[in-house]
Amino acid sequence: MKYEINDPVRLTDDGRAILAIDQTLLPNHAAYIRIETQRQMYNAIRNMQVRGAPCIGIFAAYAMFLQAKVFAQSCSDKENFYQQLHTFAKVLSTARPTAVDLTWALKRMERAAANNMRRSFDTIVEAMRKEAEDIHEGNIRTCFAIANYGLSLVNEGEGILTLCNAGALATSRYGTALGPLLLGAEKGMDLKAFVCETRPRLQGARLTAYELINAGIDTTLICDSMASVVMKEKKVKACFVGCDRVAKNGDTVNEIGTSALAILARFYKVPFYVFCPTSSIDVSCDNGSKIEIDRRDPDEIKTEFFKSPVAPEAVKCYNPAADVTDARLITAIITEEGINYPPYDFV
Amino acid sequence: MKYEINDPVRLTDDGRAILAIDQTLLPNHAAYIRIETQRQMYNAIRNMQVRGAPCIGIFAAYAMFLQAKVFAQSCSDKENFYQQLHTFAKVLSTARPTAVDLTWALKRMERAAANNMRRSFDTIVEAMRKEAEDIHEGNIRTCFAIANYGLSLVNEGEGILTLCNAGALATSRYGTALGPLLLGAEKGMDLKAFVCETRPRLQGARLTAYELINAGIDTTLICDSMASVVMKEKKVKACFVGCDRVAKNGDTVNEIGTSALAILARFYKVPFYVFCPTSSIDVSCDNGSKIEIDRRDPDEIKTEFFKSPVAPEAVKCYNPAADVTDARLITAIITEEGINYPPYDFV
Repeated sequence: MKYEINDPVRLTDDGRAILAIDQTLLPNHAAYIRIETQRQMYNAIRNMQVRGAPCIGIFAAYAMFLQAKVFAQSCSDKENFYQQLHTFAKVLSTARPTAVDLTWALKRMERAAANNMRRSFDTIVEAMRKEAEDIHEGNIRTCFAIANYGLSLVNEGEGILTLCNAGALATSRYGTALGPLLLGAEKGMDLKAFVCETRPRLQGARLTAYELINAGIDTTLICDSMASVVMKEKKVKACFVGCDRVAKNGDTVNEIGTSALAILARFYKVPFYVFCPTSSIDVSCDNGSKIEIDRRDPDEIKTEFFKSPVAPEAVKCYNPAADVTDARLITAIITEEGINYPPYDFV
Repeated sequence: MKYEINDPVRLTDDGRAILAIDQTLLPNHAAYIRIETQRQMYNAIRNMQVRGAPCIGIFAAYAMFLQAKVFAQSCSDKENFYQQLHTFAKVLSTARPTAVDLTWALKRMERAAANNMRRSFDTIVEAMRKEAEDIHEGNIRTCFAIANYGLSLVNEGEGILTLCNAGALATSRYGTALGPLLLGAEKGMDLKAFVCETRPRLQGARLTAYELINAGIDTTLICDSMASVVMKEKKVKACFVGCDRVAKNGDTVNEIGTSALAILARFYKVPFYVFCPTSSIDVSCDNGSKIEIDRRDPDEIKTEFFKSPVAPEAVKCYNPAADVTDARLITAIITEEGINYPPYDFV
């Protein structure tokens, strides 16, 4: 397949390594790292140099392909080959246990190998390259479809408010919530982005602002507490957010701060849209109250990114990683299949 | 007057200098600085070592008293004395031009001197000491009355959500919005404080958390974006905030993020209380739409407190310093005169 500049993960031209943008260095340094060894692959995920669930899945697929090539040369027989592949997949899956896309991609790659077990090593390896590219291209197609549906919701010159990072860095090419902005920019539309910095991990400031600026989009960064003023002053026409998981009834889990944004949007009568691939809709989950929210390291609030701690050591911190936005606050949920309006009842 | 440990500004025992807690070093260092010279007085305000409008007023009053003592010894005649005093007041008022309390206190001190112009230098200086203490004690009385009214709004064991810093550091003794918590703690009540960190200047993390922890209060720090979750999980019974200025109709200007908190509180049916001395009610201002909001340095969002910039240099920032909370979102406004319920029509 043909790679583009805004693919955060890709194979090198010689097909021997993965090139990945090191997301821990953004926005101050945009550097691709070359990843070749098992240890490098594990560490890239573990250390969040590669992040964003779909992006991790694509990365893992290429990693499996590259290791299959190595094993095909070093292994004397197929049994040993499959054993080594399986062991590698198992180790890699522990690099980020909560990323559903990681184990999903690893399983798909193991299955692609298993489906060709009676063929030559060359054929098996080639089938795995094809499978990795399928995973990558599938994600690009999904993002493109979402971006297109999203673009139908905005008009020339309008402002869009977003938070966290639901762009190319987390996926490939267009991302989800940022898709309409990125696709719109490609089509020469003049859209204006307002980005919540997204405390405590600042993905809005570090990643989203970086992506949008690089795409030539008029971008303004605000603190999360300023969304109310931006809506009141009618600087934005809609809110676009991504999601971690959507329940059957439309309740949406996403980065902390999303529910506050939705409540403000309702107050100011600003439409609030959730963007997600259908793979993120969990029909086994009736509603948001059933979803447990991770808590991050409490000290992160006081120390991460700062020169010195910004609060007394003795103070407790409460640091939920995400929140649940009530379905009734969501104007529509946009997937690769279309624009879904309430009442939501996904099947 | 008798000073207490939580007075951020006071005279030294020998009456020759001001002791002020250096607020720029909090929360990592709690150090009092001794301020004696004109230059030190100007810089302490200018560099925000002394901050919080009422606190600046008290500081300026003591500064005038100390300089009057110096001028009384160095001046040969009264005319020269008053001239020097006036010049000093004029210079000091430029250290923080927007602080209403600063010019108000300086004028009160000049008047106290002028009222005694036919008396001896000793008498004039003594009258000025008394006036400075009156300003200080008046603020303590106001804060104490506000704290008492506020305390009638909470019950044992309840959680209170606040933002920014409306405590002793900004005033003297009890502060305004923090008064009920601090007074409650003195009375042995078990109240729980939740504090929004208050981006971009982090007054919640740096100052409020520091004060409350020092007062032995059960305090939890959150990012501003987490207030929605804290209310949804019923961790708090009410929101207590201070204010910069209240319009005749009750519209309230306060630190950025206040209006968002009020909208969330309305959504979750959590009472939202504003605490302010009557001196902060501007009856000449009909409503909030007439109040212009300062903007802070845009780059502050990317750089202040951080090890390295957290967003690309090219991204614009929008950094309003405050916002206006609609009177209809405010459950009551508490002053030293009592608890005011809507409809508000201050005279």
